[in-house]
Amino acid sequence: MFELKQVGSVRSAITDIQDAPRQESEGAPEAWIEIEPEYVEALDGLEIGVEILVLTWLHEADRSRLKVHPRGNPANPMRGVFTTRSPHRPNPIGLHRTRVTAIDPPCRFQVQRLEAIDKTPVMDIKSVLSGNR
Amino acid sequence: MFELKQVGSVRSAITDIQDAPRQESEGAPEAWIEIEPEYVEALDGLEIGVEILVLTWLHEADRSRLKVHPRGNPANPMRGVFTTRSPHRPNPIGLHRTRVTAIDPPCRFQVQRLEAIDKTPVMDIKSVLSGNR
Repeated sequence: MFELKQVGSVRSAITDIQDAPRQESEGAPEAWIEIEPEYVEALDGLEIGVEILVLTWLHEADRSRLKVHPRGNPANPMRGVFTTRSPHRPNPIGLHRTRVTAIDPPCRFQVQRLEAIDKTPVMDIKSVLSGNR
Repeated sequence: MFELKQVGSVRSAITDIQDAPRQESEGAPEAWIEIEPEYVEALDGLEIGVEILVLTWLHEADRSRLKVHPRGNPANPMRGVFTTRSPHRPNPIGLHRTRVTAIDPPCRFQVQRLEAIDKTPVMDIKSVLSGNR
């Protein structure tokens, strides 16, 4: 009933989850996003410089985990995953705010930084609202 | 392969999509979120006053639409849905930034505003990062 369609993929120099920074603000590299041909029309109007939200599927996450030590640090007391940004959660949707830095028509564009590894499935792209979400 | 689990539901006075404002900043009312019993543990540590992101499944969206008139206004030129916040998109995941205003243990909490109609499925809750995403 709630089935997601993969609309694209991340292309990044980061291929190992151990090398991925925990947040974009912590040194994530540039990456490319490749949209599947059947969804390319949904990119119409994309511009260099705009901020976007990229929703990914964190395919290496543990969907059964409901509590975690924040930031994977055992010194941090366990918390419910809904009060964190842990990738481990019932629906491992990653949310990345970034900026478009280049467009390679028809289906590829580059983003300023993204803390997802190579081949991470992309599920959605949204514009950023002025309200800063 | 990419199957989402419903972790909760929106409880709102808005029951008709025609009455829902387009963005939280445009007069959305308070709402309650009810988490399914099996996922309640993931709320551990939730506090009144904190900002959260609520991910919903916009079950009345048209998943086949790749271009829209922004804000549903025919005067706005058609754009790809990935450059908008239209609910119509291949994966109709709604993203709502709001604030916790009350907690009714074990499984219900109230949020300041939410532009989703009653019974909208909830798929994820995330904390807001200081980077303002």
